[in-house]
Amino acid sequence: MAVVFRTTRRVEFADTDMAGIVHFANFFRYMEAAEHEFLRARGLSVALDWEGRHLGFPRVSASCDFQSPVRFEDVLDIELELAKVGRKSLTFAFTFRHAGRLIARGQLGTVCCLLRPGQPLESIEIPPGVRQRLLGAPENGPV
Amino acid sequence: MAVVFRTTRRVEFADTDMAGIVHFANFFRYMEAAEHEFLRARGLSVALDWEGRHLGFPRVSASCDFQSPVRFEDVLDIELELAKVGRKSLTFAFTFRHAGRLIARGQLGTVCCLLRPGQPLESIEIPPGVRQRLLGAPENGPV
Amino acid sequence: MAVVFRTTRRVEFADTDMAGIVHFANFFRYMEAAEHEFLRARGLSVALDWEGRHLGFPRVSASCDFQSPVRFEDVLDIELELAKVGRKSLTFAFTFRHAGRLIARGQLGTVCCLLRPGQPLESIEIPPGVRQRLLGAPENGPV
Amino acid sequence: MAVVFRTTRRVEFADTDMAGIVHFANFFRYMEAAEHEFLRARGLSVALDWEGRHLGFPRVSASCDFQSPVRFEDVLDIELELAKVGRKSLTFAFTFRHAGRLIARGQLGTVCCLLRPGQPLESIEIPPGVRQRLLGAPENGPV
Repeated sequence: MAVVFRTTRRVEFADTDMAGIVHFANFFRYMEAAEHEFLRARGLSVALDWEGRHLGFPRVSASCDFQSPVRFEDVLDIELELAKVGRKSLTFAFTFRHAGRLIARGQLGTVCCLLRPGQPLESIEIPPGVRQRLLGAPENGPV
Repeated sequence: MAVVFRTTRRVEFADTDMAGIVHFANFFRYMEAAEHEFLRARGLSVALDWEGRHLGFPRVSASCDFQSPVRFEDVLDIELELAKVGRKSLTFAFTFRHAGRLIARGQLGTVCCLLRPGQPLESIEIPPGVRQRLLGAPENGPV
Repeated sequence: MAVVFRTTRRVEFADTDMAGIVHFANFFRYMEAAEHEFLRARGLSVALDWEGRHLGFPRVSASCDFQSPVRFEDVLDIELELAKVGRKSLTFAFTFRHAGRLIARGQLGTVCCLLRPGQPLESIEIPPGVRQRLLGAPENGPV
Repeated sequence: MAVVFRTTRRVEFADTDMAGIVHFANFFRYMEAAEHEFLRARGLSVALDWEGRHLGFPRVSASCDFQSPVRFEDVLDIELELAKVGRKSLTFAFTFRHAGRLIARGQLGTVCCLLRPGQPLESIEIPPGVRQRLLGAPENGPV
């Protein structure tokens, strides 16, 4: 069964550009914030202390298709789906709507990594307890 | 023959995040700035008055794969390739390197549109003169 | 009687920098967003159609003193005070706290301007109806 | 004798907002980037390993007065002056001009701090060698 999480976000003035619409790069910030809200809702974090190790989920890929513009003070309805849970990686799919209209669809690919000060990132298997929380019963809504 | 443009960009402090590396969303700003630099080098602009019409190139898609992190004060070597020139659309491919190491590869898809105040965007064919400048002999280097 | 408005904001990952804290420039985005939330709560907007004219409030000054850092996922308690209402200008004072600790204090100075396409900004007196809404009974809380 | 450093910066599309001008918060990014360019020109950095200690210069204050707007692709002439060198602190003053026209004036106040992983920032006296480089003969120009 699909793991889905829904939240909303209002477009801020600083998110717009001279074309009068949200600058496209901000959709990637919006995706990331929704991802982190999803993780918080499951007792997780993108910067996570877990069983004595410090874990992170750096991004390995990001993409977005833009269907329709949104403007200052518009409220975006954001749907996150945990599209794929690999051995070491997570893929999130996002759908942005405003007042029922499709705005954009995007994806973020992340990899579970061990974070150690002064050392390069090392990818590791997603710990079973983290996996369990990710796939557990969905809890929706803004935090 | 491929249309290629090369430029460089130094990572600023505000581009980094708490992981100590460039925040992934900034690569989309970097791509766009390189695209605009390429357009300027050919006497064009992303906000263009052309034969009495005001043209723009809104983004319809954006993607990036991240291979390796970069940090504050690192200088990125950015290669833009005009990957596809359609009837109405342009696709740019980007390669980011630092000191010879591959950092990221990305793409931007844009569509030529008529910009009229208070009216929705209307996609149009790329004017022949604009197409000619895009495909003309490459002029590389920072502006 | 002071016009005061309170809201909250959670620090996002993209707001942080390599020092592990919120990058200082983001406090100015936070101030502006709180200002706009205050305006919305009073039926106003920073981009306002009022009695047939299009009004805006461009910034003429901005300042902030930083007392203590905040980090990813911290929730900021933001207090906005309408510090001064001039004939044409507004001054907002902001206090940022986290868990009771003072984080930063800032100010934004704005001027009421007429916005007309293709023409320079012209400062005008704040219309009486706008002034009335600004100074009316406070309505607090997130929108 | 005043320590002055000059550089330039071209306004990027992502720096603009729906008012068609540079969003005011970006001037603080511009100031910081000019400060760092000044430091690099003197063999220093905002993230500095110095005599076995890791030093940083967190911001304690920032302010800017905005005189006139700038737009996409405008080139800003930025003048940095090292306005004050205290025992522990530095104050930088900035003037932004475009084509001779005054755009904005700003200030950044920073404090020399010891950076130690997992510990709070501790302000320290600016080391004599750092002070000497800051006050040495100016070297201007983009790096």
